[in-house]
Amino acid sequence: MNEQNFSQLSQNKIPLPERAADQITQLILSRQLQSGDRLPNEFELGSQLGVGRGTIREAVKILVARNILTIKRGKGTFIARHPGEVEDPFGFAFYNDRLKLAYDLLEVRLQLEPWAASLAAERATDKDLAVIQEEAQAVESLIDSGVPHLEADTRFHTAIARSTQNMIILKVLPVISYSEDLFGTVNEDAIRRETVRGHRDIVKAICSHDANAARAAMEAHLDLNRRMIEKVGTRGRSPLSH
Amino acid sequence: MNEQNFSQLSQNKIPLPERAADQITQLILSRQLQSGDRLPNEFELGSQLGVGRGTIREAVKILVARNILTIKRGKGTFIARHPGEVEDPFGFAFYNDRLKLAYDLLEVRLQLEPWAASLAAERATDKDLAVIQEEAQAVESLIDSGVPHLEADTRFHTAIARSTQNMIILKVLPVISYSEDLFGTVNEDAIRRETVRGHRDIVKAICSHDANAARAAMEAHLDLNRRMIEKVGTRGRSPLSH
Repeated sequence: MNEQNFSQLSQNKIPLPERAADQITQLILSRQLQSGDRLPNEFELGSQLGVGRGTIREAVKILVARNILTIKRGKGTFIARHPGEVEDPFGFAFYNDRLKLAYDLLEVRLQLEPWAASLAAERATDKDLAVIQEEAQAVESLIDSGVPHLEADTRFHTAIARSTQNMIILKVLPVISYSEDLFGTVNEDAIRRETVRGHRDIVKAICSHDANAARAAMEAHLDLNRRMIEKVGTRGRSPLSH
Repeated sequence: MNEQNFSQLSQNKIPLPERAADQITQLILSRQLQSGDRLPNEFELGSQLGVGRGTIREAVKILVARNILTIKRGKGTFIARHPGEVEDPFGFAFYNDRLKLAYDLLEVRLQLEPWAASLAAERATDKDLAVIQEEAQAVESLIDSGVPHLEADTRFHTAIARSTQNMIILKVLPVISYSEDLFGTVNEDAIRRETVRGHRDIVKAICSHDANAARAAMEAHLDLNRRMIEKVGTRGRSPLSH
């Protein structure tokens, strides 16, 4: 609960639909409704919460906006696939100092991603390894054909994060990898070749369950990001103006 | 953009208010509107976006639910204080395996917080140090009077995170510290004494700008969490059932 909600609560000034939205969330949690489960209908919710259908409808809109509920037209209202998860949870899009944002993100990535790669080397199942190899291959194919590979690159890094078997790493890494978007797709040949080489080293280390090699390979790979950010920083232009 | 949004986009099936909400967000970003700035009025937004006032109103509700806008009654609609930031951005509340959640969170904290403490020791300004000391004192006073100290404890850790001068650390640490809530407020005397001792060691190390000591003190302090989680795990009950 953020500060504002808190003071609103103490003054009992929370608008009715907002309060109903919180109560519906509590109901979802207490009934342990799962992703894909249907929300009880407006009538049942209304009598449970003691509010009218108009309020329930407004509350549902709020929960859809928060990705807790999803509406399937003609089918009904359901618990969302990843309830409560949002795209840009820290509002990075609203940060003005893009270069500081890029530096700060990189500092945290350098602390987390090599460590995550070493955990992946220790814990990856055979199935995890197959996915990592597949995603690395997908990135290479795109690079070979000169097609943008950012999404495939993200899937590659996500496959590594998933192999740590730690769901928090799986959630946090994509968010702090936001920095990659700051530069758009880089099209320099040297960088593409280095990306392919870096990925191959990472895959090899993880597949041989060599934690130290995986850590070192990921560190070397991230160094590419560091140099790109520093290049932008030195030129003194915003990382966004690509 | 999540998968579902993406497929909706390709089918051009995004509901009109949702699309308007995204366009208003783009407008906020391109005009570099700041937290506290007033949103252009419905009429201007409507003619800019080519939609009616009803759609603008629905779009504003979506952006309020996402904490991008805030409505001050009788005053108007403004950019929120921390636009886009949400309380539980990864939807931890919806995770069923509370014990795995607690373990995974702790594993990431152990990787990040001692490092953050060492950065704080290196980078804290005199003003930062004063705040850290103040918050540590506040926690001690509450513990002495037997009053719940969870919120003060969070402020203490936040003061350290802020001293790293890295805004990503400042955003990420509170989210992964979610684990503390899993256990409610612990009321054992031994744990209270250990908390006070741990905080004192951390404050001393940071104030003498000793990065290694700060890292070690934070590691020792987090070990308390580890032992609490393991105790719960061994008893085989959910960390939530306190």
